Amino acid sequence: MAAAAPVLKPVAPEARDAAIAAIKQLLGERLTTAHAVREQHGRDESYHASAPPDAVVFAETTEEVADVVRICAQHKVPVVPFGTGTSLEGHVAALRGGVCIDVSRMNKVLEVNADDLDCRVQAGVTRKALNEYLRDTGLFFPIDPGADASLGGMAATRASGTNAVRYGTMRENVLSLTVVTPDGRIVRTARRARKSSAGYDLTRLFVGSEGTLGVITEVALRLYGIPQAMSSAMCSFPSVADAVNTVIMTIQSGVPVARIELADGPQMDAIRKFSKLDMPVAPTLWLEFHGTEAGVKEQAEMVQAIAADHGGADFKWTTNPEDRKRLWQARHDAAYANKALRQGAQVWATDVCVPISRLAECITETQKDIAESFLPAPIVGHVGDGNFHLTIVLKPDDPKEVAEAERLNDRLVKRALALEGTCTGEHGVGYGKVDFLVAEHGEAVSLMRQIKKALDPDGIMNPGKILRM
Amino acid sequence: MAAAAPVLKPVAPEARDAAIAAIKQLLGERLTTAHAVREQHGRDESYHASAPPDAVVFAETTEEVADVVRICAQHKVPVVPFGTGTSLEGHVAALRGGVCIDVSRMNKVLEVNADDLDCRVQAGVTRKALNEYLRDTGLFFPIDPGADASLGGMAATRASGTNAVRYGTMRENVLSLTVVTPDGRIVRTARRARKSSAGYDLTRLFVGSEGTLGVITEVALRLYGIPQAMSSAMCSFPSVADAVNTVIMTIQSGVPVARIELADGPQMDAIRKFSKLDMPVAPTLWLEFHGTEAGVKEQAEMVQAIAADHGGADFKWTTNPEDRKRLWQARHDAAYANKALRQGAQVWATDVCVPISRLAECITETQKDIAESFLPAPIVGHVGDGNFHLTIVLKPDDPKEVAEAERLNDRLVKRALALEGTCTGEHGVGYGKVDFLVAEHGEAVSLMRQIKKALDPDGIMNPGKILRM
Repeated sequence: MAAAAPVLKPVAPEARDAAIAAIKQLLGERLTTAHAVREQHGRDESYHASAPPDAVVFAETTEEVADVVRICAQHKVPVVPFGTGTSLEGHVAALRGGVCIDVSRMNKVLEVNADDLDCRVQAGVTRKALNEYLRDTGLFFPIDPGADASLGGMAATRASGTNAVRYGTMRENVLSLTVVTPDGRIVRTARRARKSSAGYDLTRLFVGSEGTLGVITEVALRLYGIPQAMSSAMCSFPSVADAVNTVIMTIQSGVPVARIELADGPQMDAIRKFSKLDMPVAPTLWLEFHGTEAGVKEQAEMVQAIAADHGGADFKWTTNPEDRKRLWQARHDAAYANKALRQGAQVWATDVCVPISRLAECITETQKDIAESFLPAPIVGHVGDGNFHLTIVLKPDDPKEVAEAERLNDRLVKRALALEGTCTGEHGVGYGKVDFLVAEHGEAVSLMRQIKKALDPDGIMNPGKILRM
Repeated sequence: MAAAAPVLKPVAPEARDAAIAAIKQLLGERLTTAHAVREQHGRDESYHASAPPDAVVFAETTEEVADVVRICAQHKVPVVPFGTGTSLEGHVAALRGGVCIDVSRMNKVLEVNADDLDCRVQAGVTRKALNEYLRDTGLFFPIDPGADASLGGMAATRASGTNAVRYGTMRENVLSLTVVTPDGRIVRTARRARKSSAGYDLTRLFVGSEGTLGVITEVALRLYGIPQAMSSAMCSFPSVADAVNTVIMTIQSGVPVARIELADGPQMDAIRKFSKLDMPVAPTLWLEFHGTEAGVKEQAEMVQAIAADHGGADFKWTTNPEDRKRLWQARHDAAYANKALRQGAQVWATDVCVPISRLAECITETQKDIAESFLPAPIVGHVGDGNFHLTIVLKPDDPKEVAEAERLNDRLVKRALALEGTCTGEHGVGYGKVDFLVAEHGEAVSLMRQIKKALDPDGIMNPGKILRM
C-alpha cells in the first residue's frame, strides 16, 4: 500500500504487442518482459504506488533510442525513460504501461574539454561516475542531489541539492542536450558556446521536462576547477529564525558560500542518536566554503561573526579533510537517521522552496503541524535557496499513516504556495504533484499543455507526469 | 541604404484599420499613426533596414497590453513589442506592418525584496533606472549590455554584456516574467522561489524569444549586494593567444573574475587615438574583481602572476574609484573610438560566441579577413565567455561597403559555427540572423517552429524574427 496512482487508460494490447515484437526484432535480448525487471522499473525511491511497464529495453546508443521511440510512436505506445530510478514523485511509473527505455548502459563520458570547463556524457552516466572519471583532471561536477543519480535523470528533473547556492542547479549547469523527440528525431538543443542568444532555449525546455517531451540521451555539462581550499563549519542556534537570518545576512554580504544546510531540532535529535554526533538538539547550520586558503578562512570568520550576532553557539570550523568528512557525514546520514526513528518505517521525502525571507515562517508553521501529528517528520534544507524537505517517517502499509502523510504534505505545499513559493524546489512533479502544479501556475499550465500537445500530439511520452492532458 | 529586410506579406488593410480603430477607442491619444513616431519605432540601433509599424501605442499596464493584443489577435494584425529600440539585429522592424506596443511608459519598480535579493519591475524600466532606484539599498543589478536598454527588452533578447562571466546573463538572472500571450491572456511564468522543479521552464522559454511568443510586461530579477571592494586592472599581451590563455588559466584557477574584456591591436589603436590612453597598440585585457578588500587584492595578484606567465606586460592595477572609472571609460568608448576612425561612418556590431579554447583561433582567423578587407573592423570581446564583437566601420549609404560588411559578417558567423560556437552570443537573431539560426541548430529549428505555431498559430507576434515560418 502506498499513495495511490492516477488511473489512466492503458495502452491497447494489440498496439503494445506489435511494438514489443518490432523492438524485440531490433534489440533481441536487450528487450525483456520479465516480471522482476518490469517491477523494478515501475517504481522509484518514493512511496508512490508502482506501475510496471509492459517491457524494458536497455538502449546503448542515441540511435537505438530513436529507433525504439519511432516504433512506439508508430503504434502510439507509451515511452518511459529510466536512469537510476532514484526520483521521488513517481516519475518512472508506467501509468499506461508501454515501453521503459533504460539508459543505464549508456554510460560513456564522450568528451571532456578542460580548457572550456565542459564535458559531454551519455545520459546514463551517474554524477559519481563522472567525478570519478574527472579525478585526475583537477575538475569536478558539483551538483549533488544525494542519490547517485544519472545525469540524464538529473537533467530531466532539474535536480540540484546541497551546493546549488554556489554552483546553481541543473538549469544553470546543462550546456546542451541530445534529445530524441516523441516522433523519433534526434535533436541537439545547443552548441558548445558558454552563452547564446540564438533562438528559443530548448535546453532549458527539456531540463525539468521529466521525459514528457522526449528522451534525453546525452548531456553536456559545465565543470569547475576543484577549489584550492575547502573549509566546513557547523553552528547551532536558539531558533530556526536565528539560523535563517544568519543565512540571509551571509548571502547578502556576498560570502560565496558553497553549501549552507539547515536541520531543525527534531532532525538533530535523530542525527545525534544515529551518528553519535556531539551537537545540541537545536536548529543547526552546516556550511562549506570553497576558495583560496586565505579566502575560505576569511569567509568562515565573516560567517562566524554573523552567526554570533544571531545567537549562534558552538561554531565548529575545520579545514581538515577527515573532520570535514565526519561533519558532513552526519548531514548525509539524516535520511538513515530518520528511518531509524521507527522500526520498519520508511521515509516520505517531500520538498518545497520559498523566498528566503519567508523560510523561517514556513518552517516554523510546519513544525507546528508536525508537533500535532502522530508521525515524526524532521526537517532538513538547502536553506541558501529557501529549499527544504520534510521527511515524514511512516509505515507505508498503514493506510492511516499514508493518509496522515498526505495531509501533512498537502498543508506544507499549500503553505509554501501561499508564501510565494513553489510546490517543488528540486524533486519535480512526477505524478505526485500534478494537482499542485495547477495551484501554483494557474493559467501558465495551459501554455505548458499547448507545448506538450505540439511536441507530443499522441501523448506517448511518460503519460500522466507533470500535466494532466 | 542598409542591409535589406526580408519581404513578408503585409497585413490586410481592412484588418489593420479595424484593429487601429478599436485600439484608438480604448487608448485615445496613446495610439498614434504619426509618421515620425512610426519611423522611430521601426528601426533599432543596427544598420538593418527600417520597417515602420502602422501605429504605435503607448501602454501603461499589463492589462492594456492584453487588451491591445486581444484586438490584434481578433483581426490577425501583427504586434511588435518595443522597449528602448537599442537592439542590433532589426528586432523591432515591423516587417508586415501592424501595431507596435511601446512599453517605455511602463517604468515602475513594483517591488524590491532586499532579504531575498530580488525585485519585480515593469518591462519598460531600464537597467540604469533600476540601479538608480536601488542606490540606497546596498543592492545592484549587474547585467550591463552597454546600452541603457529596458529590462523587458533585455529579457527578450537574452542580453548579457561585460560581467556575465561572474553574474550570468538574463537567462540566469530573470526569476519570472509576466507575459501577454498571443491570444491576450496574462500569464506569470514562475513564482518567487529561487529555484523550482515545477513544470516546464516557461521563464527561460520567453527569455530570448524576442517578442515572437508574447509580450513581456513585467520582469522579476535577481539582485546582488554591492561588493565591499572592487579593483580593476589592464594588461597588454604579445598576441591574442597569450591574452586568451591568460583568461583560460584565470577561470580554471577559480578566480571569480567579475569582468574580463579583450580588445585587439586595431581596437587599441582606435582607443588610444580617441581616449588618449597610454597603452601599447597590442591585444589588451581589462579585468575587474569584486569581493572583500583582501579578496580583490589576492585575485589581482593571482591574475598578475598568470598574465606574467603569458608575456603580459604593463599590468596596471587599481582600487581607486577615479582610476577605475578612467580605465573602464576607455573600454566603454570603444564604439565611439571606432566611429571616429572614418568621418561620416557608422558601426555595424556583430557578435559570435565560441568555446573559449577556440577563441584565439576564431579571433586570429577573423583578423586575417579584416587585414584583407578595405573596411576597418576592430574587435572587442567579453572573453571570459568566449563572446566577441566585430565592429565593422562602414558608410551605410555605400552599397559596396554594406556588401563587404555582409561578407565579413557571414565569414565570421560561419567560422564561429565551425568552431562549435553560436551565431550570436548576446545580440539575438532578429531578422538579421534568421538563416544562421538554421545553420546553427539544424533539426532543432523545427522544434522551435512547432512551439511558435502552438503558441502563436496566426503568427501575429513580431513576424519574421528568429524563425521563417
